[in-house]
Amino acid sequence: MSAGNAVMSGQERLQQVMQQMARDMDAAFDVALPVPDDVRGPFAEAMRYAAIGGGKRMRPLLVRGAGELFGLDQAQLLRVGVAVEAVHIYSLVHDDLPAMDDDDLRRGKPTVHRAYDEATAILVGDALQSLAFEILADPRTHKDAAVRCELVRLLAHAAGANGMVGGQVIDMAAETAPEDQPFDLATVTRLQQLKTGALIGFCIEAPAVMAHIPPEQRLGLRGYAHDIGLAFQIADDLLDVEGDADLAGKALGKDAAAGKQTFVSLLGVEQARRQAHMLVDQAKAHVQGYGDRAELLCALADYVIERDR
Amino acid sequence: MSAGNAVMSGQERLQQVMQQMARDMDAAFDVALPVPDDVRGPFAEAMRYAAIGGGKRMRPLLVRGAGELFGLDQAQLLRVGVAVEAVHIYSLVHDDLPAMDDDDLRRGKPTVHRAYDEATAILVGDALQSLAFEILADPRTHKDAAVRCELVRLLAHAAGANGMVGGQVIDMAAETAPEDQPFDLATVTRLQQLKTGALIGFCIEAPAVMAHIPPEQRLGLRGYAHDIGLAFQIADDLLDVEGDADLAGKALGKDAAAGKQTFVSLLGVEQARRQAHMLVDQAKAHVQGYGDRAELLCALADYVIERDR
Repeated sequence: MSAGNAVMSGQERLQQVMQQMARDMDAAFDVALPVPDDVRGPFAEAMRYAAIGGGKRMRPLLVRGAGELFGLDQAQLLRVGVAVEAVHIYSLVHDDLPAMDDDDLRRGKPTVHRAYDEATAILVGDALQSLAFEILADPRTHKDAAVRCELVRLLAHAAGANGMVGGQVIDMAAETAPEDQPFDLATVTRLQQLKTGALIGFCIEAPAVMAHIPPEQRLGLRGYAHDIGLAFQIADDLLDVEGDADLAGKALGKDAAAGKQTFVSLLGVEQARRQAHMLVDQAKAHVQGYGDRAELLCALADYVIERDR
Repeated sequence: MSAGNAVMSGQERLQQVMQQMARDMDAAFDVALPVPDDVRGPFAEAMRYAAIGGGKRMRPLLVRGAGELFGLDQAQLLRVGVAVEAVHIYSLVHDDLPAMDDDDLRRGKPTVHRAYDEATAILVGDALQSLAFEILADPRTHKDAAVRCELVRLLAHAAGANGMVGGQVIDMAAETAPEDQPFDLATVTRLQQLKTGALIGFCIEAPAVMAHIPPEQRLGLRGYAHDIGLAFQIADDLLDVEGDADLAGKALGKDAAAGKQTFVSLLGVEQARRQAHMLVDQAKAHVQGYGDRAELLCALADYVIERDR
């Protein structure tokens, strides 16, 4: 860290890091997704359409923020960030499909199945998931193979039936829940912990694995991930009610229209907002022992509930 | 190998091994796919519906056959077999979707999206792919983490845009190819090498990785995989023309109906059959240096073109 950082606020630095991350991620996907000179060309373009030029890149930013706690190599952190972002993007592409959420707009552009077709969108998601594990298992991600294996195992678990996909399954069940038996706060919390929390947990834990921090010394990090994951979802629910669809780049108000229970419908706007702020304070407290090295994680925690998209 | 094997033909032993593999794979998926006591229960049932109780388990059999060349641990080979079978099953579940091949029947049962719904089928496939990598990365698969990483990297590559998914992309392009510019033999071969060949290549190469055989000593194995992969696809094309839909457990004659070029449409039935036999002989020649240890691989090569489903 240069001396200049001393006079730059955490949010100012976060803005700089976010801009750099946007460029880094686009460049990394540009390299990872070349366009072959055969009939697969249009498909490769569809993968690039899904992966390049959009999104907040929150997950790679969390990987980088947690990586700063341990002074890890930026290039290796970026590879882990690309892997987790590939899983995140695949899940968005599949969630947007007609058989799932049936969304037309994502990050301000037509969704992949709208811009191309459904079969392409299914295969784009499938190939992005494979890509994530191919990147993690590559020796360039970390010199210690045991570390790379543990990253693969953690990401596969976080992505699968006991993680992100499991959360999506609960989300679908919520839509068909009988009106007299709506989901309660415990179920909505569990849904979030799987659907978005598991992947966020990976982002924070992966750098600890890379730094050979044993599991029993990762409790604070897990606490941080738990709290900002929940705060992130509450902020998303608030944006769904109060946000600007143009800024969000996607349709809003869909939860209420679908009769889904959310943190906002269960807690009310004011209580949900208070809860999110409380969680962010708690998240920052979990990493205060790291001192200045936790600056980026703290700025990200604040950003989670102050973003407008 | 017991002395009794000396009087048992390769095909007799293969039948025994296949029956054992059917039981082993069902048991392994039974353990890997528990049914949680919450709203995800029906989804877990759908994963089990897709994975348990059907299929020839060709890919795990190939893993076992190649594993016998090096005298590898059966339990570890089975884990690799479960991983590659999970990827194979996920691809079938997604390929059967209405937006893809729109099939109603698979392994004699309604396809997953027919028995459940499309959203469930998409998520079952997604979760099975994650499961494959979670299993491979687990220390129980091999004690050497570098080996596990290499297995993950090879399977991810074989499954993704430069492997299986890439083959499916070419297959879809074949359906929309202009009638005056149908796919030629080179393109159909490339399609097969990606769509089914890449995963078969993994099955044969994975045990060599587990036995620490360096890449330059895997050329014969790659030759075997290449040849039986092609023979397998030619046999599939022949079955599509001449087979019994009841035995196959799926709709037949679909390629011709879709106007797709296949090895049979390009070569004719007789030439295709000769080509398949030639490839099987060539495959067996590739592994003859392993002597008796290649018995199962040779029996599998013969089975590939003699099966009726």
